Amino acid sequence: MPDSLDDLRTRVNAFVAARDWAQFHSPKNLAMAMIVEAGEVVENFQWMTEQESCNLDAEAKEQVGQELSDTFVYLLRIAEVCGIDLIEAANKKIDINAKKYPVDKVKGSNAKYTEYQ
Amino acid sequence: MPDSLDDLRTRVNAFVAARDWAQFHSPKNLAMAMIVEAGEVVENFQWMTEQESCNLDAEAKEQVGQELSDTFVYLLRIAEVCGIDLIEAANKKIDINAKKYPVDKVKGSNAKYTEYQ
Amino acid sequence: MPDSLDDLRTRVNAFVAARDWAQFHSPKNLAMAMIVEAGEVVENFQWMTEQESCNLDAEAKEQVGQELSDTFVYLLRIAEVCGIDLIEAANKKIDINAKKYPVDKVKGSNAKYTEYQ
Amino acid sequence: MPDSLDDLRTRVNAFVAARDWAQFHSPKNLAMAMIVEAGEVVENFQWMTEQESCNLDAEAKEQVGQELSDTFVYLLRIAEVCGIDLIEAANKKIDINAKKYPVDKVKGSNAKYTEYQ
Repeated sequence: MPDSLDDLRTRVNAFVAARDWAQFHSPKNLAMAMIVEAGEVVENFQWMTEQESCNLDAEAKEQVGQELSDTFVYLLRIAEVCGIDLIEAANKKIDINAKKYPVDKVKGSNAKYTEYQ
Repeated sequence: MPDSLDDLRTRVNAFVAARDWAQFHSPKNLAMAMIVEAGEVVENFQWMTEQESCNLDAEAKEQVGQELSDTFVYLLRIAEVCGIDLIEAANKKIDINAKKYPVDKVKGSNAKYTEYQ
Repeated sequence: MPDSLDDLRTRVNAFVAARDWAQFHSPKNLAMAMIVEAGEVVENFQWMTEQESCNLDAEAKEQVGQELSDTFVYLLRIAEVCGIDLIEAANKKIDINAKKYPVDKVKGSNAKYTEYQ
Repeated sequence: MPDSLDDLRTRVNAFVAARDWAQFHSPKNLAMAMIVEAGEVVENFQWMTEQESCNLDAEAKEQVGQELSDTFVYLLRIAEVCGIDLIEAANKKIDINAKKYPVDKVKGSNAKYTEYQ
């Protein structure tokens, strides 16, 4: 079983290639597929209280893990077909977010960053 | 700059801890935040043709990379707070999908898996 | 100002026609636009507690009303271009839901309907 | 069968009351439920071409109508529990959009409004 992000990406690409599905994997279609799966993650939590969502039983955790995985696989595919290095892009975005949300101004607050500007 | 998924996860967790934001990061709230970001990915593509989405200019690619990164960061946080090993969960889900969509039945087709059962 | 759903639909269609935007309004594109707007509704609530979401101040209520309206307008457009009578479809769906969720079995419970079958 | 938006809203509210479900219907939860249903609308179109989405067969049209109806019902509920008059809010938002997207500047173009400002 692959144990790294690169191995997983390679496996996902092989899965798609074996089924000749790359023809359907335009970024537009993949973005739709990703948000559909994100919706299935949300569905698990929609009627739970926040507290309940923090204490999932084994079955719910398994279910969330599966939907999260589907979301992740489409996210990897979007990065792939757009030529985006996901780890690099995420680190650059965190650099941006760190400036948008300086620790001394936002600590402990959930207000939107626009309120600090 | 971190260069692996584990390093990225560690960095994200430290970012959250420094801002004392873990208190807002119930799985329920994080699932909402993730789908909001997924929506911002979709927004980039909504009026494009599929063909256009396959040929992004540098500015659009940068924008998609940023929104995809935000989606990814919340996805990592959901896995974190739910105690899900994302690489392991994704590999297990691909095993399931490989059985649901056998190569000899689905090759080149975009029909839903239910039609094969 | 139009005061009925039919008047609103007529106004929305005229708004689109005046801008020659029907060419972009395939059901596929409109479904993307609708979920993007639904994401903007969700964004308003993502860091609120449920209790806070029940007690919106005037500014938040105005903001939610605007995003809900954008979602609604795209929903109306999907119905329009697909030739769906929204009021009729919604009533038929409520008939279905009433059978799926019989009062005597689901009263006061948030469990999914599948658990009753 | 109810034939107007007001009748539908009344019917939806009665459906919820009969099941004692208002206790779960915080705006936060309803926004989650609405986007989950919007995701099910999107799912119908994710692997279709735009052209295919414009020519739904009877079964697909029925399916889209059902998911659109579920989205609509939650949208009505959000308006209800937030005290928003949906027709009035939508008309006000169209007034705003008409100013953001003046006919003489956007006619036939799918560029985002920010590009006109």
